[in-house]
Parts: sequence; structure tokens; C-alpha cells
Amino acid sequence: MGITGIAPQLSGAPLQGSAQPRAAGALPPSPPSPQRQLVAWDEPSFQGRQQEFTSECEDIAACGLERVGSARVESGSWVGFEHPGFQGQQFVLEQGDYPCWEAWAGNIAYCVPRMSSFRPVSCANHRDSKMTIFEQENFLGRKGDLSDDCPSLKAMGWGSSEVGSLRVYAGAWVCCQFPGYRGFQYVVESDCHRGEYKHFRELGSRAPTPQVQSIRRIQQ
Amino acid sequence: MGITGIAPQLSGAPLQGSAQPRAAGALPPSPPSPQRQLVAWDEPSFQGRQQEFTSECEDIAACGLERVGSARVESGSWVGFEHPGFQGQQFVLEQGDYPCWEAWAGNIAYCVPRMSSFRPVSCANHRDSKMTIFEQENFLGRKGDLSDDCPSLKAMGWGSSEVGSLRVYAGAWVCCQFPGYRGFQYVVESDCHRGEYKHFRELGSRAPTPQVQSIRRIQQ
Repeated sequence: MGITGIAPQLSGAPLQGSAQPRAAGALPPSPPSPQRQLVAWDEPSFQGRQQEFTSECEDIAACGLERVGSARVESGSWVGFEHPGFQGQQFVLEQGDYPCWEAWAGNIAYCVPRMSSFRPVSCANHRDSKMTIFEQENFLGRKGDLSDDCPSLKAMGWGSSEVGSLRVYAGAWVCCQFPGYRGFQYVVESDCHRGEYKHFRELGSRAPTPQVQSIRRIQQ
Repeated sequence: MGITGIAPQLSGAPLQGSAQPRAAGALPPSPPSPQRQLVAWDEPSFQGRQQEFTSECEDIAACGLERVGSARVESGSWVGFEHPGFQGQQFVLEQGDYPCWEAWAGNIAYCVPRMSSFRPVSCANHRDSKMTIFEQENFLGRKGDLSDDCPSLKAMGWGSSEVGSLRVYAGAWVCCQFPGYRGFQYVVESDCHRGEYKHFRELGSRAPTPQVQSIRRIQQ
């Protein structure tokens, strides 16, 4: 699985921690860790002032940057949020370069040129991820078990463009509004809500619709 | 892999073929087939005039619709293009509902509210897909072998945000500009160009950059 035949890279950049008080909706703060590093700049293309993070940031304005213009995830996987306090539209940030806000924005219909908070994804486990989706709320109706990426639920036999509720047993996943992992993104984790999402509103503070047509694991 | 525990659906909608003359850049036309069906409407939300397709459409304007306002892929996987003749920006269309152009558009920085041609993806094979990426053009430099989805090449040890060239041995893949399958999309297939893409310009007629940070298989 993944790429074979090349040597894995080691991340060796110096770290600056940024400890934040725990906020409503946040997971227990992760300890600063070289396994998780995100660097943010206040201008696109990695220009302007920069700040390094190894744990969550509840409000970018309180962390020395006016805005996030570009970002580079050096290690780990993160989820960014439109508003402070981990609220609003969500953006999954796996390792790599995000030279402009368009690189992380998931929903063109509701463009959000703003990422105001972010935190590490706590339990990404690409190899051993498991979840179950249900047709109706409260884990009722037809169900389907996932252990791999699914760019089209319909192609795999799911009879609807919606998911009523879901249970995450292992790993972290992102549920997406449209096929091919496009549209609104909702991060669901096995150690958040005890992995139980009984209603689509529990998917996030900006979940206008239960429409979910693709789901994939988050890279650890 | 995928969803287990639910019965697969059968597609049973009546079919209307739309045979097109072969155009430059198109694959050999696929025979009309119930294994591939795309329905297009000229307005969003599946309203207005509709047209069904079981093979390629070189120019939507010649097929009875002024534009594609929404689409539903009933079976198979397709690739849409910004311009007629399979030119311009590409959009992977796996099974499911695309109620508006934002649902298939891949690149927010270069929004394209237009899909003027589309064709089936010829050799999608989710289970047995294989490709190799190379650091430099003409298959030179460091290389990496892929047999699974890769939302972050960096996380898997790829040392760059670019790919110089690639070889597709089996299946069909989509290479994406940013991590998490965002940004420009380039469809690469094992039976197109003999699976050889020696230079990033061969990725498509609108490949402004060799930046590729995520790659995944296309659902068959």
C-alpha cells in the first residue's frame, strides 16, 4: 500500500511548541511532538511571517499571525477550521504544501478564504481503519462496513447520496459531500464522540446536509 | 476493501446511445454499454433538459444540451473536460450525484463552471492498479511504485511536491495538484499513451505545473 521503493524521509526541522488552553469542541490537547508539525505563513506562497505548530491552535489571531495565507504540513495530519474554536467548515491537511487557501478549501460552492483554527487529527491509522455507515439516524436502517477508501459510495452499492449516522471503530476518516472527495468535508475520529455520530448535525457545526457520497481514511 | 455487508445495486435505467466520431485526443470509442451511463441536465439540481450517454461526448453543444448544469453517473467512471474535444481542465466523475458544477470542479483557484466534453475512463481497475512515478522527466531520477491511494506523497516518503514523469502499468489513476486529492486533476490510464507520460505537459492540455502531491486509483 502506498509508495514502495523509496526511502522514507525523516522530518528534522526545529520545533516551536504552541500550547493552547483546552476549548469546547477540542480534543484533549496533544503533547508537542515531532510527529506533528504544521508551519503557517500569513501570506500565500510561504511568504511573510511564519509560525510553527506542534499542537492545536484555537485561534490563529492569538498565535502571532493575522491570517493563514499558506501552510506546510511537515508531519502528521491536521484538520483546519473556518472559525476560531474549531468551528465552521473543516479542511483535512495531510503532509505537503498548501501554497494558497484554495489548496485546502474543500467546497467551491461555499468558498472560505479563511482558516482560523486547526488541530492534529488524533487517531489517523491508514492501515487499520474501520467504520460503519447507516442509512438513518441513530444507527438504524441499512448499513455498510468500510475498511478502505471509497471515492463513490454509490459504486460500492450504497443506495443513497446520504448517510444518516455512522460509527468509527478505528482510525480517522473524512466524509465528503460529493464523489471523489469533493465538497464539504467532515472529519470523524474513533476517539471523538466515542466514535459515534448519531445525526448528521454531529458531523460539524456547518453540516447543512446529510449528503455524503465519498469517504476515505486520513493519512497518519 | 470498499463497503461490505450491503447488497450491490443493479442499474436498470433505459439507455440511449450517443455515438460520436473519433476526435484527436480521444481514446478508441467505447461501445455503448450498460456498464457505463452518465445522465446530464442543462440546469443544476437535475432540472431542465436531460440527455443520457453510454459513450463519449465530444461536444455537449452538439448533443442536444447547451451546457451541463448537473449530472448523475449511473455506472462506470468518466472524465469530463472543460473544452470540447477532451481538452482543458479535467474532472473525474465516479458514480453518484453532481447537482451543480461545483460538485465536479477540482480547482478553486481556476474555477471552471463549464464541462464541454466527457468520455468513459477506459481501464479503471480499483483492485489491480499499478503505476510508478519518477522524480524527473523521461523516467529518470528517484522513483516510487504505487498500488494504492496516496493522499499525501510526502507522507509516503516522496521528497518533492512534483512528479517529473510516470508510467501506468495497470488501471486508471488521477494525479492531483495538492494533498487530499485537491486542485488540478490529471487522469492517467494504462492504455493511453501506452501508459507512458514522459513530461508533465503530457498530463493534459492545461497542466501548468508538474506539481502533484496526491494520487489515487479511479473507481471502476
